[in-house]
Amino acid sequence: MNAIIISIGDELTSGLTINSNAAWLGRQLADLGISCPLQLTVGDQRAAIVAAIHHSAALCDILLISGGLGPTEDDLTRSSVADALGEPLVQDQAAMADLETFFKRINRTMTENNRLQAMRPLSASCISNSCGTAPGIMARLGKTQIFVMPGVPREMKAMFELSFKPLLQAAGGGVVRRIMALNICGAGESWIGSRLADLMKRGTNPSVGTTVHDGIVSVRIYAMGQPAEVHTMITEKAEIVRHRLGELIFSTDQVTLEEVVVQNLLQQGRTVTTAESCTGGWVAMMLTNVPGSSACFKRGWVTYSDESKAAELGVDPELIKTYGAVSREVAAAMAQQARRRAEAHWAIAVTGNAGPANDDLKNPVGLVYIAIAGPNGGDDVYVRSCQFPGDRQSIRLRSSQMALTLLRLKLLGLDPEAVLPR
Amino acid sequence: MNAIIISIGDELTSGLTINSNAAWLGRQLADLGISCPLQLTVGDQRAAIVAAIHHSAALCDILLISGGLGPTEDDLTRSSVADALGEPLVQDQAAMADLETFFKRINRTMTENNRLQAMRPLSASCISNSCGTAPGIMARLGKTQIFVMPGVPREMKAMFELSFKPLLQAAGGGVVRRIMALNICGAGESWIGSRLADLMKRGTNPSVGTTVHDGIVSVRIYAMGQPAEVHTMITEKAEIVRHRLGELIFSTDQVTLEEVVVQNLLQQGRTVTTAESCTGGWVAMMLTNVPGSSACFKRGWVTYSDESKAAELGVDPELIKTYGAVSREVAAAMAQQARRRAEAHWAIAVTGNAGPANDDLKNPVGLVYIAIAGPNGGDDVYVRSCQFPGDRQSIRLRSSQMALTLLRLKLLGLDPEAVLPR
Repeated sequence: MNAIIISIGDELTSGLTINSNAAWLGRQLADLGISCPLQLTVGDQRAAIVAAIHHSAALCDILLISGGLGPTEDDLTRSSVADALGEPLVQDQAAMADLETFFKRINRTMTENNRLQAMRPLSASCISNSCGTAPGIMARLGKTQIFVMPGVPREMKAMFELSFKPLLQAAGGGVVRRIMALNICGAGESWIGSRLADLMKRGTNPSVGTTVHDGIVSVRIYAMGQPAEVHTMITEKAEIVRHRLGELIFSTDQVTLEEVVVQNLLQQGRTVTTAESCTGGWVAMMLTNVPGSSACFKRGWVTYSDESKAAELGVDPELIKTYGAVSREVAAAMAQQARRRAEAHWAIAVTGNAGPANDDLKNPVGLVYIAIAGPNGGDDVYVRSCQFPGDRQSIRLRSSQMALTLLRLKLLGLDPEAVLPR
Repeated sequence: MNAIIISIGDELTSGLTINSNAAWLGRQLADLGISCPLQLTVGDQRAAIVAAIHHSAALCDILLISGGLGPTEDDLTRSSVADALGEPLVQDQAAMADLETFFKRINRTMTENNRLQAMRPLSASCISNSCGTAPGIMARLGKTQIFVMPGVPREMKAMFELSFKPLLQAAGGGVVRRIMALNICGAGESWIGSRLADLMKRGTNPSVGTTVHDGIVSVRIYAMGQPAEVHTMITEKAEIVRHRLGELIFSTDQVTLEEVVVQNLLQQGRTVTTAESCTGGWVAMMLTNVPGSSACFKRGWVTYSDESKAAELGVDPELIKTYGAVSREVAAAMAQQARRRAEAHWAIAVTGNAGPANDDLKNPVGLVYIAIAGPNGGDDVYVRSCQFPGDRQSIRLRSSQMALTLLRLKLLGLDPEAVLPR
């Protein structure tokens, strides 16, 4: 069983509104085990809507349409569906009564335009709208079942949940889809892809794919089957991926990198501090995003200038003079000094050149040193040099994520050099 | 001239990712006066992609395709375009050289998968990617010009702007749409809407609308016409809006709040420091987002705990004991002390409860005090109490934006109480 989604509205095709309805419906279909190989977005033009319905109905069992059911001139879905069916529009008595009740309840006069909303193609039926005026429409074109919903997200979602989802569940034969995401920071998508190539072959179930969002790569495992079996299918595949990628995986599903780090710190009863140059507070900002982080993060510094590294952290100015602020030595000293001053177990320090231009000392854009000073004091400091691609924003984000990744690995007692690819 | 947009990826059809690329491209086309009656979203299936290309090419002059150009098994756009053209894939020498240079620059080994990205259909050409590895593709199918871009939004946008937009501009001829955004921080969308209601009537040209994105309200003025006239049309309407909203407007178009603040500081030869509690480094992070900010921002503190406010900034512990850390008095002291310690002209301090729960002293979630200490020293400190709605993330963002807004107004010599609505 497969479905196509048609979204209707000039505000969508002209990009004024991002089409989140289609994404929501796509997710609902996927979870019901109904494949959705195609989505269409069509402007407010009757001929184009009719063409899209004909084109889609020839390709699918289920056609979900949203938008264009309102009371104004540019709401053309109702008449377009009638055209596609080759039928006239007739007034639906029950829908008309619903509309009258609705307007009585909110104490407004119903306009002539509103009456149009009670019209439906002759062979179709109206579906009541639990939170708005426009009823939905259910119709059949050949072998294709058509469900039409309003475009207002709240109304669309309520109508789908109440009226259409139960029908689709029954029709779907109990098959469901489940997804697990394994999240990775510190290795690129192509590096990960090359390690999972055999798992990522098309047309398998469970299937494996990768996505990247804001520097985090997610390996996604999709399983389709009976509710009782999908969990096992996913877990088994996840075991294989875990075996290949090991400690590179920092979380599953929605859990963020900063949540994992804060959680580990809290579990171990440890604290952390930050001394940031090129990330300018981003690492501290990420840590403090996590509710409860105040128990493990008490203070941090943004030491952007050379002077502040000396004055606030106590980094030896001679060290900066000798090696430059962007250096392995200064990163290490920043972390060690910050750790001491904050009386924290761990310290993160970041110093680098986020661009846009090479700096005074000819350090290339994207060169960043990240240091992690550990609870054993003295020599317990690890520094990684990184060369990040992209613009200033992206270098700063990746630096911050890498800093948290390095701390995460150290908290697990691991050597980042052994875990992270170069 | 008309265009169709095809977005490719299972993450889109299954609703994992909301298709913001299609909206962005739709807006670009609208700005170029090119109509876009249809958008398609297709999953990672070669036959479906080929069918979508054939179907679209028969209907349009311009076909924009994004996604599926990556180096992994599920990136099928390259081979699908070749299939649609009925041509084999061949290696593009220039693209291959670009890839080699890219990997050399970031000091990584190129995998075999990456090499696939330099393949193109025989008659097509490769378009270089200014911020990633996957080159774009330009091809012709019958009368239809096909432009293929990566799915990563940043890469897609850069490639469209640099390589495809100039071609479309030349082809478009005549009418263009221009937009000006006037950006506001510190007043809500409905408050602004009520002041511009008469300008926001539908069906006018130029037209006026409002959008909200991440706490920033933008008043958008759209004008459609010949290139020579749209500028005047927009400027005249903008004058009216400026007259109504005055100093609430911090910038036009893409200029960010932090850029305006840094620019003003640099122009005045002034410096700023930050002392942040609930925002946890976010204000510093925003300031240091701006290239060149190192000339006006030297250091900042994240003083998350009471102890750190005393130890690092020198806030009197008695003050914290008497009024609590979330108070007008402590905010003022944090700013004054930070300013003194950093030897800066200005200081921003933020202390509040970002949630998720009311704190020990029963301060409600969303209560935030923001202080601005000024160059006159001593009593030159302004504190604003704010009650922000939303979740932790949103309270922290709005606090950071309000802090920058207050500094912006102070730098203009204005009283925030007189400018910002309550």
